[in-house]
Amino acid sequence: MTNRTFFLKSKPAGKLAAEDFELRLSADPVPEAGEVLIRNILLSIDAANRAWLDAKTYRDQVRPGDPMPTYAIAEVIESCCDRFVPGDIVVGESIWSDRHVVPADQLSKAPKHQPLSQLHSLLGIAGLTAYFGLLEVAQPKAGETVVVSAAAGSVGSIVGQIAKIQGCRVIGITGDDKKGHWLVNELGFDAFVNYKAADFQRCLRKVSPAGIDVYFDNVGGWILETVLKSMNLFGRVACCGAVSGYDKGVGTETGVPGILVVKRLTMRGFIVMDFSEKNAEAIESLKKWASLGLLKVSEDIIEGLEKAPEALIGLLNGENIGKRMVRVAPDPV
Amino acid sequence: MTNRTFFLKSKPAGKLAAEDFELRLSADPVPEAGEVLIRNILLSIDAANRAWLDAKTYRDQVRPGDPMPTYAIAEVIESCCDRFVPGDIVVGESIWSDRHVVPADQLSKAPKHQPLSQLHSLLGIAGLTAYFGLLEVAQPKAGETVVVSAAAGSVGSIVGQIAKIQGCRVIGITGDDKKGHWLVNELGFDAFVNYKAADFQRCLRKVSPAGIDVYFDNVGGWILETVLKSMNLFGRVACCGAVSGYDKGVGTETGVPGILVVKRLTMRGFIVMDFSEKNAEAIESLKKWASLGLLKVSEDIIEGLEKAPEALIGLLNGENIGKRMVRVAPDPV
Repeated sequence: MTNRTFFLKSKPAGKLAAEDFELRLSADPVPEAGEVLIRNILLSIDAANRAWLDAKTYRDQVRPGDPMPTYAIAEVIESCCDRFVPGDIVVGESIWSDRHVVPADQLSKAPKHQPLSQLHSLLGIAGLTAYFGLLEVAQPKAGETVVVSAAAGSVGSIVGQIAKIQGCRVIGITGDDKKGHWLVNELGFDAFVNYKAADFQRCLRKVSPAGIDVYFDNVGGWILETVLKSMNLFGRVACCGAVSGYDKGVGTETGVPGILVVKRLTMRGFIVMDFSEKNAEAIESLKKWASLGLLKVSEDIIEGLEKAPEALIGLLNGENIGKRMVRVAPDPV
Repeated sequence: MTNRTFFLKSKPAGKLAAEDFELRLSADPVPEAGEVLIRNILLSIDAANRAWLDAKTYRDQVRPGDPMPTYAIAEVIESCCDRFVPGDIVVGESIWSDRHVVPADQLSKAPKHQPLSQLHSLLGIAGLTAYFGLLEVAQPKAGETVVVSAAAGSVGSIVGQIAKIQGCRVIGITGDDKKGHWLVNELGFDAFVNYKAADFQRCLRKVSPAGIDVYFDNVGGWILETVLKSMNLFGRVACCGAVSGYDKGVGTETGVPGILVVKRLTMRGFIVMDFSEKNAEAIESLKKWASLGLLKVSEDIIEGLEKAPEALIGLLNGENIGKRMVRVAPDPV
């Protein structure tokens, strides 16, 4: 009975507490065909773990009575499959325990790399999230201003450094001046802003005089809303997480950007003038569809200039069908 | 003194009222060099007009004392420039008036098209907004489910029909059953949902059993949040407007998606696994940057399985710097 395992005892109502977990002792589980017994070496601890306790996300909800799942680096100590032998270092799904039996197909052989911990940090989910989120999703260009929240975290600290490698000006948002100084002095960030400062928005504007082109969002909530106000035209926001909501028991699916992350949605603002070089092509298609009867034109013409205010007021109250306009004069003959 | 012009009298505090405008009579203005005198034929009435009264958007704020601006179809009646002669039909910036003097460079010759009103509807801002917003921004594929709000409006009614032409299943959101039946019976929408229904979310799910792939959002607010809950993985939301906030005096820049539209931002949710086929390339780059000293690895390793709960709780409280993990066992030698 030397194998320790943490189980979720109760669904946390708000802030996570140690009492929400229960440590139980058991004998080592015994692997069956297709399984391996592993001993955990390093468990990855991520803010998303908290979200798993609330609801189904990109994975099933962890429910009271379940062992706490985790991504782990582990060593195979007994194998009932062809793919692994004792001594192999593996990465994959495990639980918060000393030892655990896992189906072999949930594990991969770890790449040869020292120290092992870097398979969780630089080369693990943290590093890859930063790499793809910044370069594939946000696509910063040299000279642009990049802001990242939870900047001293596992992902944020790498995002900022990769943005520097790309030639960007980099600003980190953090809740702790000590972390902020570490970002600037140790990691080479250009500036930091403490979101707990009373004049956060003004501080942010001060360190981003040219506006913000890319925001790598780890937190959501009011910090997201504040950063959006300082963004430049055609800016990009990579929604990586919404940690500000995770520990409140509101669930990850509540509100933007939680839903955006879980469902990998893209939201993009636009106005029609952004595409004006393609107007001729658009007009050709619209005319053709209308002439083929595929597209019906619906217009809602209010007669008389004097009706302009009520035309607009009525539109705002939803009384129109189709394109509302005011006729001031008849068409010329 | 036969030229009528509407001026904005006061900034509307909440819902727009007729008393916010004042009609004044004047003599016809006289064009100077580079200007033309036009008589307005058709004024375009758009929900965005309301937003112009609150704050700077993609154009300057309309302030009390200003004539009410509009996009108009007009006829040139006197020209002091080379580009236009009396009788030319033009489109461009005008005001809510019978006649108006406009700098020639604010006007374009209208394409030859009858009736003129279609230069505001099918071939005007409404048609082009629908065309580009749907096809360039949201990019629906045949067979996908497309939802559009303010569906009976100038843009929405065209969006839904273009989506049908693309082979999509189309659902319109409207606040009026009569409009909804018109969408289905006249325009060929597959279904409509009335957002004023008590069970709006359930009704929406019922008519989109396969989930929603594309949402063309004209309204923002809680309708957006509700639609997001029914969206499929990798869905696209085209943020065209946020009319739900326009007539409340909250400004267009307040909240998502108002800011997204004004600044043409893209927000995209992602999780790291979406890019897994590029993992090798990412790991190569990360290793190289770290080995060149361009990227510092920051790790925050908590010793001992028994500390796993407090490791996660502390992370949620922001106490970590860099990638947090729990060491259960030493690295194998």
